[in-house]
Amino acid sequence: MSAYEALKISFHRIACLGEASAMLGWDAAAMMPDGGAEARGEQLAVLAGLSHEFLCAPEVGENIAQARTQTGWDSANLALMKEAHLRATALPRDLVEAQVRAGRACETIWRAARRDSDFRSVREALAEVVKLTREAASILGEALALSPYDALMSQYQRGINAEQAGAIFARYEAFLREALPRAEELQARRAQEALPPGPYPEAVQAALARQLAAGAGLNFGAARLDVSAHPFCGGTPSDIRITTRYDEADFCAALMGVLHETGHALYEQNLPTAWARQPVGTAAGMAVHESQSLIIEMQAVRSDAYLSYLAPLASEAFGKPVTLAGLKHRLRRVERSFIRVEADEMTYPAHVLLRFRLEQALLSGDLAVADLPGAWNEGFVRLLGITPPDDARGCLQDIHWFDGAIGYFPSYTLGAMAAAQLMAAARKALPGLDESLGRGDLSPLTGWLAAHVHAHGACAGFNEILQAATGEALNLDYFEAHLTARYLS
Amino acid sequence: MSAYEALKISFHRIACLGEASAMLGWDAAAMMPDGGAEARGEQLAVLAGLSHEFLCAPEVGENIAQARTQTGWDSANLALMKEAHLRATALPRDLVEAQVRAGRACETIWRAARRDSDFRSVREALAEVVKLTREAASILGEALALSPYDALMSQYQRGINAEQAGAIFARYEAFLREALPRAEELQARRAQEALPPGPYPEAVQAALARQLAAGAGLNFGAARLDVSAHPFCGGTPSDIRITTRYDEADFCAALMGVLHETGHALYEQNLPTAWARQPVGTAAGMAVHESQSLIIEMQAVRSDAYLSYLAPLASEAFGKPVTLAGLKHRLRRVERSFIRVEADEMTYPAHVLLRFRLEQALLSGDLAVADLPGAWNEGFVRLLGITPPDDARGCLQDIHWFDGAIGYFPSYTLGAMAAAQLMAAARKALPGLDESLGRGDLSPLTGWLAAHVHAHGACAGFNEILQAATGEALNLDYFEAHLTARYLS
Repeated sequence: MSAYEALKISFHRIACLGEASAMLGWDAAAMMPDGGAEARGEQLAVLAGLSHEFLCAPEVGENIAQARTQTGWDSANLALMKEAHLRATALPRDLVEAQVRAGRACETIWRAARRDSDFRSVREALAEVVKLTREAASILGEALALSPYDALMSQYQRGINAEQAGAIFARYEAFLREALPRAEELQARRAQEALPPGPYPEAVQAALARQLAAGAGLNFGAARLDVSAHPFCGGTPSDIRITTRYDEADFCAALMGVLHETGHALYEQNLPTAWARQPVGTAAGMAVHESQSLIIEMQAVRSDAYLSYLAPLASEAFGKPVTLAGLKHRLRRVERSFIRVEADEMTYPAHVLLRFRLEQALLSGDLAVADLPGAWNEGFVRLLGITPPDDARGCLQDIHWFDGAIGYFPSYTLGAMAAAQLMAAARKALPGLDESLGRGDLSPLTGWLAAHVHAHGACAGFNEILQAATGEALNLDYFEAHLTARYLS
Repeated sequence: MSAYEALKISFHRIACLGEASAMLGWDAAAMMPDGGAEARGEQLAVLAGLSHEFLCAPEVGENIAQARTQTGWDSANLALMKEAHLRATALPRDLVEAQVRAGRACETIWRAARRDSDFRSVREALAEVVKLTREAASILGEALALSPYDALMSQYQRGINAEQAGAIFARYEAFLREALPRAEELQARRAQEALPPGPYPEAVQAALARQLAAGAGLNFGAARLDVSAHPFCGGTPSDIRITTRYDEADFCAALMGVLHETGHALYEQNLPTAWARQPVGTAAGMAVHESQSLIIEMQAVRSDAYLSYLAPLASEAFGKPVTLAGLKHRLRRVERSFIRVEADEMTYPAHVLLRFRLEQALLSGDLAVADLPGAWNEGFVRLLGITPPDDARGCLQDIHWFDGAIGYFPSYTLGAMAAAQLMAAARKALPGLDESLGRGDLSPLTGWLAAHVHAHGACAGFNEILQAATGEALNLDYFEAHLTARYLS
């Protein structure tokens, strides 16, 4: 057996352990009784420990040193193996363990701190997490020949760095300064038609969500839809598990959530099966993943055409007059608000931009943890003109930093921008696109995405994938044009 | 760290992999979309491969050779570790792989053979499975100083051998020859009151089943009840997953199924947590496990007292007159029939007895696989007086042999007999037992079982557990007395 063949077997086994963990993670969120929590933690820790052990194994290093590959896919696969092994072995064991411990401790304190809006109580724990993350980022950066922040960012998304993202985000800040007041003004002048009050029975919402997800191309022969406190898309490519939560006063949140997760799910279902369980057969990163959920949720589903299809369908399902105007009022409003996960598509990037800048400053040490609340509020006012009334609605709202995840936030907005760019390319390639959206048929769009994004697996990074699918690297024009068309005309 | 401490860590890790497999197995049966089947097979194969690798690891053997223990539980734990390691390492890898391949191939052919009632088509595949099982049994028997059949039987239940079981079964055959015609005669003379016809809505059945299971002591804070094609009790002690299937024409099958699985579940939930994930902290074997499901389903739930409690409850739930007489007619009838899994408690042991004798003859070579159908039908007539109309209702009905499981069948009937003996001891120890059953309250019984059976974990074998709980090893008197009281008076 060649060294490369041996590596493929090693990574296949690691991937199987990852699949088992993914299913157990889904179960913990969607099915598990409370009594199972402690045992589940043990099971997942054992699986994670074995994966890490296998990834760090000396023979993996030796095989990587000896492996030779021919085709582009095999070369890309080997490069990803190398990087995974390097990332896993670069950090001293003590540091990794200290990070896990610090993250766990900090997250626990953070839950209470957020509830009580008490930043002081978590300050010390966060400082420890940031310190350890800085240490790790510096070691990883050296090993990968990247800046410390890029070393962190690239573990979530390869193919774009902080400098490129920062330039595009800065341009968006300027756009937003003009666009947001104009959008608010236009919105205030338009007639407001609210959706009828609930209740919207959960079972009817669930049936409609399933119908729309299936119409968007989700294969329920290889997927499930269940309920969890925090919606997500989990499982494995041949066994996708998406979740949502239902609010009987508002059917839109669950429907949009399901369609968002459906975008993620389609990406996973369409990954190249010939490369299943190999690094190159996985998704290309979190920003590309987010582009796939947002192109479904934001670009396709919230379009005039699709909402015109949805309105009579929802009216019939719920036995209430759900109008196009009502849906637009609910699903296409801009609003300055404090909580990122509730933000509309125009203001959302401001939430990300703030975090992107602050986390770089925290990592470099330019910003002390103790000064975070002040810097947050100051930045928030500058971006959105409103001041968070407390830290629970400010720097304490997201789990990411408190759990040691620095470098993730840009993915959300890079994904939103990529979604607009991909949609523009799809619209150009598919002249009947809006007509098909008007029939609730997303198959032309998802077929195009399958061929131009999903089929590439992790063969390419963020900008390469956009280049191949749209003819250019990330270009903010498309996202600006999308927002202009939807909110400023 | 002592050698024994190192072993505890090894077995803890193996147990965690087993728990992960148990959850994935439950998911495959109760939740997984069809598309996930192939990937699930891969995941389970990787987990099983790792468990086997860890169990066979040279350092486990070295630690076993060096380990010294003091207390009874630790000694029992070490003895179980030794046996597990010995069993895992005794067989040559080639043989184990040949067994897995032959079992898989044979099972596939068997599914079609059973459907078509075509024994000839599976004869060769079964002969291969039997040949390999014979080879393995002979090696294991030598390693464990047991007869080949006992080496197989003891992997399902320690603490009773084929000679002891055979003697008790022979005595039961004599009892049955007298008892069955008398029971049939008495039954024919009794007034027959059928339950009202359905439909019994699935949701109402499920709610009632949950209520009864909770009343029997099942803690739903650490358990779930779901649907699967073949009911089972899976999961882990702190996260039990029981399943059933619903027939809207007959609510009794699902209810009895849930209460049967609840008996298994209570055993798991009550295992000694101080020994969790150690061999000695698991159940004592399949016959003991079956005694725990049958003492709930057959001894407690089908008693006059409990059925008197159930009748008005079911009447109210379904809005139909479910009478005590109707329940007795449905749940306490004897009938000569061909299918083991549908047999009543009096004739069931005859089904097991036949298999127990035939599988010993197959293993020793006294019976050629080609002669199995004839031997089956001949034996069946001798035991129950009726001839199977075809092999689908004869020697093809059960998966066990075709999957390589020889030595399992006696567990069912040893469990039924042990259940009667345990019930007699519990009744003696708990004077108000029938009154509590009449209130649907199984807690006195299950509390007694928890203390006298569950708390022992795998510290003792079959007869030792009965000895400790009832003052004697397995004694058929109690099962005969139970059947006599229920069917012959």
